[in-house]
Amino acid sequence: MKNAHKNQTDRASEPGKAQNPVDGLGRLLDADMRAVNALILKRMDSDVPLIPQLATYLIAAGGKRIRPLLTLAATQIYNGDMPRAHGLASCVEFIHTATLLHDDVVDESLERRGQETANLVFGNQASVLVGDFLFARAFQLMTADGSLDVLRILSNASAVIAEGEVMQLSLANNIETSLEQYLEVITAKTAALFAAACEIGPIIAGAGPEAARAMAAYGLNMGIAFQIADDALDYMAAREKLGKTVGDDFREGKMTAPVIYALQDSDAEERIFWERCMARREQSEADLQTAQALFEKYDSITRAMTLARIYGDRAAEALAGAPAGALRDCLHNLIDYTINREY
Amino acid sequence: MKNAHKNQTDRASEPGKAQNPVDGLGRLLDADMRAVNALILKRMDSDVPLIPQLATYLIAAGGKRIRPLLTLAATQIYNGDMPRAHGLASCVEFIHTATLLHDDVVDESLERRGQETANLVFGNQASVLVGDFLFARAFQLMTADGSLDVLRILSNASAVIAEGEVMQLSLANNIETSLEQYLEVITAKTAALFAAACEIGPIIAGAGPEAARAMAAYGLNMGIAFQIADDALDYMAAREKLGKTVGDDFREGKMTAPVIYALQDSDAEERIFWERCMARREQSEADLQTAQALFEKYDSITRAMTLARIYGDRAAEALAGAPAGALRDCLHNLIDYTINREY
Repeated sequence: MKNAHKNQTDRASEPGKAQNPVDGLGRLLDADMRAVNALILKRMDSDVPLIPQLATYLIAAGGKRIRPLLTLAATQIYNGDMPRAHGLASCVEFIHTATLLHDDVVDESLERRGQETANLVFGNQASVLVGDFLFARAFQLMTADGSLDVLRILSNASAVIAEGEVMQLSLANNIETSLEQYLEVITAKTAALFAAACEIGPIIAGAGPEAARAMAAYGLNMGIAFQIADDALDYMAAREKLGKTVGDDFREGKMTAPVIYALQDSDAEERIFWERCMARREQSEADLQTAQALFEKYDSITRAMTLARIYGDRAAEALAGAPAGALRDCLHNLIDYTINREY
Repeated sequence: MKNAHKNQTDRASEPGKAQNPVDGLGRLLDADMRAVNALILKRMDSDVPLIPQLATYLIAAGGKRIRPLLTLAATQIYNGDMPRAHGLASCVEFIHTATLLHDDVVDESLERRGQETANLVFGNQASVLVGDFLFARAFQLMTADGSLDVLRILSNASAVIAEGEVMQLSLANNIETSLEQYLEVITAKTAALFAAACEIGPIIAGAGPEAARAMAAYGLNMGIAFQIADDALDYMAAREKLGKTVGDDFREGKMTAPVIYALQDSDAEERIFWERCMARREQSEADLQTAQALFEKYDSITRAMTLARIYGDRAAEALAGAPAGALRDCLHNLIDYTINREY
């Protein structure tokens, strides 16, 4: 186990390669992740060809598969049954994929994971319906697994995610959005599934309620940190080097941490600027730069990253009770990576 | 019990009131349906106001609540636990409502149940997300009920519905669609939930696998008959008197039974007409009348209704083994009503 950890450090020193504990976890759980990927492909099959076509398009495009990895790690760390974890990790990824498909329809997104979104290629209609299929398929598979605890955790998470998305929609373009409301939205739409993905590990392993609570708290707080960092990264110029666009949230008028911090101490003229750009979405080319200058003035990005770190610390605290070893080290490194990644 | 049945006949003779066994069932199960309606309102509540707003808009608009009624009747007829049936009947209605919300987004519908669609009033985004919420909420409630059999039946039905909707989307505007493909689509998108709504009754009642199979077959075949009749009704002028539009499916280029029958024996010129109207959707005002003249020529509507009756007979056959009484009589009358209704 020590070796796996060493490998990870070695790889981190490869030129141009940032230390990536997702890869580290992936190496520790390599055979398991391959089993999960095989299951995902097998279980999204259907006699209706458009379903595997669209699902493969999105799922094969990759993504970090961080949620199923968390389920695997949280099962393995408590010596749980890994074949069961494979099945339930694939359910977690199906629920995530279903929400991505619907998100992209709702946001009218054009790009995801460096390629055109499914809604752009296959149409909104197919994205809505294949999302529904993946969601239903996840519940079929959980039912076949037979744990009412797992069903409870993942059906609760699914309802909370939908509530978070609706709340985000209700608050979009509303410059009165408070930091508390923002945290409520991201806790629901992002952190709830991270928490659920982690919590089912100790459940599968029969590790008792304290372990389940600890892993849920780890996932929840890391999920919040992850989303705050994600929202800050959306404004960071370094993204462009990675082929990503800067300021997507700005153009959509999404009220995220940097904007909320900039608004807290804004003067009347700045408020008019935010009102025009975020609420009425009347934007010219130069506005994104103005926004970034205001972030500089009010230290918005730094404050957002500090907030992310507070939740990261809580995640680390929750993790401290888990059995020590390479897996826990990887899960710990994942917190920092989540906050400090560049994309 | 005899009285309830008599009441129904009395009411049927009210002037301008067609005999309606949905009302008949509703009277037999009046207290139960009120309990279900109260549960529906209670359980679609959320701290995010847009969710109950939108859900109430659609659910309060009415509809016949035929699916939860079927669950209640199929439980009661086998002397099952009615409070459990109330909860699961509300889950069935939530799944149905979620599919309606997503359907209307996919079809870009403007009107449902005599009022503007939710997507028109609240936007596509809210309709997609509140649909997701209702679907997740249904699974939360089923999990709380705790029957893995019920979860299996309703998660299977949900996946099959989504597959049917995707298949319908794949076949839309394709004049090569066969009657077999059409039947496959409607069995999945409509009949599967009728079947599931009925099947969970004997499951709740612990009435054994034969009763479950019989009620599932009743629901499935009635669901197929219902949809064939629905698709024929879409072209019937009598609708207009009821404030409904005629030819919605025609304008969308949906390949339903009447069109498929008209195409089977069509000559070259007629084929060009259908190709233009259904596949390319290039339509002028007079085209709907031409379509209806072709239905007349090829007896399309009559043939569709005959097909509906074949499935109706199968439903009646499946029902024959259920305990005799006023409930079974109502369920039997429901088959004819499903086929002969005027709206």
